[in-house]
Amino acid sequence: MGKNIQAPRGTYDVLPDQSAKWQEVEQKIIELCRLYQYKEIRTPIFEHTELFQRGVGDTTDIVTKEMYTFKDRGDRSLTLRPEGTASVVRSFVENKLFGLPDQPVKLFYTGPMFRYERPQAGRMRQFVQFGVEAIGSKDPAIDAEVISLAMETYRSVGLKSLRLVINSLGDTESRLAHKEALVAHFAPHISEFCPDCQARLDKNPLRILDCKVDRNNPLMATAPSLADYLNEESRQYFDEVKGYLDELDIPYVIDPNLVRGLDYYNHTAFEIMSDAEGFGAITTLAGGGRYNGLVEDLGGPDAPGIGFAMSIERLLLALEMEKVEIGLSDTLDVYVIAMDESAKKKAFSVVKDLRVNKLSADMDYTARKLKAQMKSADRKKAGFVVVIGETELASGKANVKEMATGEQHEVLFADIASTILKKKSLGE
Amino acid sequence: MGKNIQAPRGTYDVLPDQSAKWQEVEQKIIELCRLYQYKEIRTPIFEHTELFQRGVGDTTDIVTKEMYTFKDRGDRSLTLRPEGTASVVRSFVENKLFGLPDQPVKLFYTGPMFRYERPQAGRMRQFVQFGVEAIGSKDPAIDAEVISLAMETYRSVGLKSLRLVINSLGDTESRLAHKEALVAHFAPHISEFCPDCQARLDKNPLRILDCKVDRNNPLMATAPSLADYLNEESRQYFDEVKGYLDELDIPYVIDPNLVRGLDYYNHTAFEIMSDAEGFGAITTLAGGGRYNGLVEDLGGPDAPGIGFAMSIERLLLALEMEKVEIGLSDTLDVYVIAMDESAKKKAFSVVKDLRVNKLSADMDYTARKLKAQMKSADRKKAGFVVVIGETELASGKANVKEMATGEQHEVLFADIASTILKKKSLGE
Repeated sequence: MGKNIQAPRGTYDVLPDQSAKWQEVEQKIIELCRLYQYKEIRTPIFEHTELFQRGVGDTTDIVTKEMYTFKDRGDRSLTLRPEGTASVVRSFVENKLFGLPDQPVKLFYTGPMFRYERPQAGRMRQFVQFGVEAIGSKDPAIDAEVISLAMETYRSVGLKSLRLVINSLGDTESRLAHKEALVAHFAPHISEFCPDCQARLDKNPLRILDCKVDRNNPLMATAPSLADYLNEESRQYFDEVKGYLDELDIPYVIDPNLVRGLDYYNHTAFEIMSDAEGFGAITTLAGGGRYNGLVEDLGGPDAPGIGFAMSIERLLLALEMEKVEIGLSDTLDVYVIAMDESAKKKAFSVVKDLRVNKLSADMDYTARKLKAQMKSADRKKAGFVVVIGETELASGKANVKEMATGEQHEVLFADIASTILKKKSLGE
Repeated sequence: MGKNIQAPRGTYDVLPDQSAKWQEVEQKIIELCRLYQYKEIRTPIFEHTELFQRGVGDTTDIVTKEMYTFKDRGDRSLTLRPEGTASVVRSFVENKLFGLPDQPVKLFYTGPMFRYERPQAGRMRQFVQFGVEAIGSKDPAIDAEVISLAMETYRSVGLKSLRLVINSLGDTESRLAHKEALVAHFAPHISEFCPDCQARLDKNPLRILDCKVDRNNPLMATAPSLADYLNEESRQYFDEVKGYLDELDIPYVIDPNLVRGLDYYNHTAFEIMSDAEGFGAITTLAGGGRYNGLVEDLGGPDAPGIGFAMSIERLLLALEMEKVEIGLSDTLDVYVIAMDESAKKKAFSVVKDLRVNKLSADMDYTARKLKAQMKSADRKKAGFVVVIGETELASGKANVKEMATGEQHEVLFADIASTILKKKSLGE
């Protein structure tokens, strides 16, 4: 019926032998967020396009080049979410979460995001992010808490080679002063830069520092640093964040060139990189920062916020590079073998009984011979194998074999589950 | 900055006070699938449009009216997945899972699906499905296992008012005989039917029985029933499925008019309905069936399959109707209060220490007074409240209060976590 259909370019399947890893990462995330008291929020996969134009910034690469935008059958312009913050803030405003008695509202999300980029290792068109947002506090302690939660996520799965890089983007006044200095620095030579940078000079000169095309232009290295334009308040805020990080014993490096790719950040910005060998070009595991002003921009009150987002694909890649294995707990308790067709229904009923007793159980559904079924039990690493044939049907007892010890017993059908539960708890 | 942006029509946010329910349902699903040995698979949110045209059927309502289809920046026609089976089968073929030594391959998925329909309770444009597919066996026992897993999912969350409806759609030969009888039945009067049904007469007359427009036409009730056209093999297969359901003590109702809305089903078809009072018009919680032939249609070998899909939104709606509460375990272990700015860093460090010890902990980040912080601790149902002020900083001991008993103790900062862990385990 014609050629086979494949997964769209830049997307991939998580196959059954890989999914236990994903489940383990997600369970760790849920547990950590419970300890830190961040509650889950789930927003739709697509939003009105305008949300990202306003909330991510319409001069960013994401919005100008990378969005999956389309019209629905009702002629609305919709966009598959390229990131999580704009959606969470939209929901915070729409559902009036700013009215809850306990502020800040501490939220987390996990789920797929979409950016049309050239696919490469660690950069897919559909990728999964875990992110948090704490909205409603401008306490520097919450900045440190958010950073700490990101670091703990990596530590909880066993990653060690991590580097936390932080910077302050300052408040509006500081950024304006820096912006003017940037324009003065680049304007005389802007014709040497790419057309994108030329457009950025007026709209958003900070973005020039992010440019991949002109990264080696000597004017980049000599550009005025934001650090020199921070006003007293911004400097003090940054000092307090650093103080709280010290309190948590979290080491960090200050990088005055860290600007982040999104428009809405101010004050604290941070990235977590992997220092694992062999990671390749993209070593940023997570990024985040403070976004005072964004909630107001999206129609809400003046609620300050901070958050981060991390790619789960890159977390798994970092685990591979550091040779840490997770998701190994995925084994089978009991494999039940019917020696022939006549024993099939009894085997089926034993499997059901085992499952009711919270034992994972499986059997053959392809009429294979005893030997092939035994091989199956081995491959699935069954803890116990139960064999039922004519003799067993006649005696009312099944043969139960514990695979680790080789021990075998004849056990009444009704007692199989309890016998295995007992042996299993002894073996642990 | 202009009017607020809202979630797109037919979509919704799961807010933090609701998400614990979703997490509990998903944890139960993961646990049940472990017991039944169905492994998770994750396929992309969008696929090539052709997949659904071929895999769902290009005469179905889903494909003709309800898909979110768009071109990406590389001019590919992509479609947000309207259901899960076609994607799972695509992945099974593309990744050659038919070559794995253990067949059938038993898979499950959870995630959002997309259909452009008129939104109403229990029918959103983005909705979440849990589904399973067992591919590679035509054993009637696996049909019963799949049905049993669906029923157990509902039972595991506490639902009781369930009705399982089953039918056999027969094999190709039986369906062809029935199709001819349908054409003979409807053809003389087809001009009385809607244009959609007129088109269906040639393409897929079975679909006429599904029509919402002509449902009251008297010819519907007198239409030839598939049950009368099942050949011997199909009849026997159906009998065996029923036998295995009996073995599992799962009650069912046979409905010869159950045809399912998708093209690819044959043999076993089933639906699970809620009989809970007040459920409204849409009472179907889950649907599924056998799809021998689909894998081959999508370029794979002749691997028979069976599966189901259930809407999580409707499951939660059924819980509401049956007044079953889930997701209640979401409480706070410790709230730490800093009486003044000087105690803030110590409080912050105590919070960190509690979390390291797997206690959920929180504090104030908005510089509120003691009384407001106490109220917060109450609202969050904190098990313990730790108070730190000038006196405590001087003495090196914090005030630890157990909220259930009102008991208070002065505890060395370094011993707070261990003290609370001890009291907590006593209280359980």
